[in-house]
Amino acid sequence: MTTAPPTRPTGASTESDALRALYADWSAVIAATPDLTTRLFRSIFDEWHQATREPEDVTYREESLGGVSGIWALPAGADPAQVLLYTHGGGFAVGSASSHRKLAGHVARAVGATAFVADYRRAPEHRHPAQVEDTVAVFEALLARGTAPADVTTIGDSAGGNLAVATVLALRDAGRPLPGRVVAFSPWLDMENTGATLVTNAASDALVTVPLLEGMIAGVLGEGHVDRRAPLANPLHADLTGLPRLYVDAGGAEALLDDAVRLADRARAAGVDVTLSVVAGMQHVFPFLAGTAPEADEELAALAAWYRG
Amino acid sequence: MTTAPPTRPTGASTESDALRALYADWSAVIAATPDLTTRLFRSIFDEWHQATREPEDVTYREESLGGVSGIWALPAGADPAQVLLYTHGGGFAVGSASSHRKLAGHVARAVGATAFVADYRRAPEHRHPAQVEDTVAVFEALLARGTAPADVTTIGDSAGGNLAVATVLALRDAGRPLPGRVVAFSPWLDMENTGATLVTNAASDALVTVPLLEGMIAGVLGEGHVDRRAPLANPLHADLTGLPRLYVDAGGAEALLDDAVRLADRARAAGVDVTLSVVAGMQHVFPFLAGTAPEADEELAALAAWYRG
Repeated sequence: MTTAPPTRPTGASTESDALRALYADWSAVIAATPDLTTRLFRSIFDEWHQATREPEDVTYREESLGGVSGIWALPAGADPAQVLLYTHGGGFAVGSASSHRKLAGHVARAVGATAFVADYRRAPEHRHPAQVEDTVAVFEALLARGTAPADVTTIGDSAGGNLAVATVLALRDAGRPLPGRVVAFSPWLDMENTGATLVTNAASDALVTVPLLEGMIAGVLGEGHVDRRAPLANPLHADLTGLPRLYVDAGGAEALLDDAVRLADRARAAGVDVTLSVVAGMQHVFPFLAGTAPEADEELAALAAWYRG
Repeated sequence: MTTAPPTRPTGASTESDALRALYADWSAVIAATPDLTTRLFRSIFDEWHQATREPEDVTYREESLGGVSGIWALPAGADPAQVLLYTHGGGFAVGSASSHRKLAGHVARAVGATAFVADYRRAPEHRHPAQVEDTVAVFEALLARGTAPADVTTIGDSAGGNLAVATVLALRDAGRPLPGRVVAFSPWLDMENTGATLVTNAASDALVTVPLLEGMIAGVLGEGHVDRRAPLANPLHADLTGLPRLYVDAGGAEALLDDAVRLADRARAAGVDVTLSVVAGMQHVFPFLAGTAPEADEELAALAAWYRG
């Protein structure tokens, strides 16, 4: 299956081509290498950072929190009490603190906080709920060293956006204090692949396809081991009551757009304070274009206003 | 051809296993994927940074100098007048400013300078001498904006160590001012594969093999387009007279050890002030273990003392 890469939508910046081109290249590699191993998938997806410009005035420090290694992004002048607990995307199987270091640095700088990008255990070696358990462990380690729960924001993209929500649900179910905010960039939530945009945006999304998602689902849930509607694996089937302020975004051109829209709808119906930002013509996790394309920089400015609000 | 990965040499730190394991993993991927494309080679070698810990108190900034893009590594408190012009390794074909960002950050921090890691044009799309031309262009751009020639150090590893030397030779031949220092980590110089350690260290080197080198040579020189003894492609055949102070290192376990030793010998014979550091049991470009293994940190401390001397 070789399809032409999607062309730039009307109104999208020329700079936004960078992410579309990266995804089209990955898709070409995947199409040309039917037996691509998880090992090489990880290698390719660690190139995600290539869409992002190095953020300036940010330093980095590796640390292990709650037994989970990760990278701190520390913007000059950021409030060290404010922590973004960042869970990277990549279908729970690929992506890393390294692939998301620059993106986390941009977000941290925009909101004036520090960010810890967690290298949680990945599938298929580690099935759900290992990823949620690791993120909870990082949150508890932050509290143990004096960070106020309300000063923590769980934030992530794609599968990491799922984790940013599921981690709060796990904490709520355990009667633990909750983070003050939740941010989900292009969250991937629906383990049943029922979203209409999987079909209607199939031609405009340069990366995400149902076969790709099915492979990721098999990896993280195991074949039949975890129900596709388990609330912590598929928060579209969770009771979202009591969730803190929630910011959700998505690109208008992406196949997973419906996941973001449905999360926002269901959270609102559960009484959650929700902000949904859909940016026309953008691809999956378009904030990766931070420092590169105006759409991403404007999105992070909007997020920063929400964060302070 | 599947050979067992080399075991840890007597006296080497347990932490130094990280680089040996990374190379053994790459070698396994290469052995298992006979038709590995340049595209995927680049993906794998961009993982080089994984051996290096994030250096603390270093910020980064992307810039284009002389038409060559790259990443500045800016340690807190570093003298902005002192510039390391860093050329990454990877057989002139793979590796990047991203794969070497952390290593350059550690070196810059150790010597108290700033570092610019250049994304020079790579083979096979661009043959020799495109790589030398790009590095010369960066050097001239530094001078044009006021950096004193003597405050520039050309520095690189593997193929980039070759470039660190060849760039100075090209400047000398053109009658241009010269950098004040040259540093070559595990330089790869011999395009004829005549080094004895290619054979004697074949069992202990976890990455470098003659077939791998032959592929890189074909890419950068073209099949018969550039002579394997051309002085700017193979500085072992160059007149090294007039080279500034030179620091060369290598790992005792690596197949390219003889390149470092021969460069040091020939430079000394040409009257150059040479320091050679061979660290027993270490792999190719062991400074990648900066922040991870004591051998690399001690090497950078020795380099810093030499830099100030």
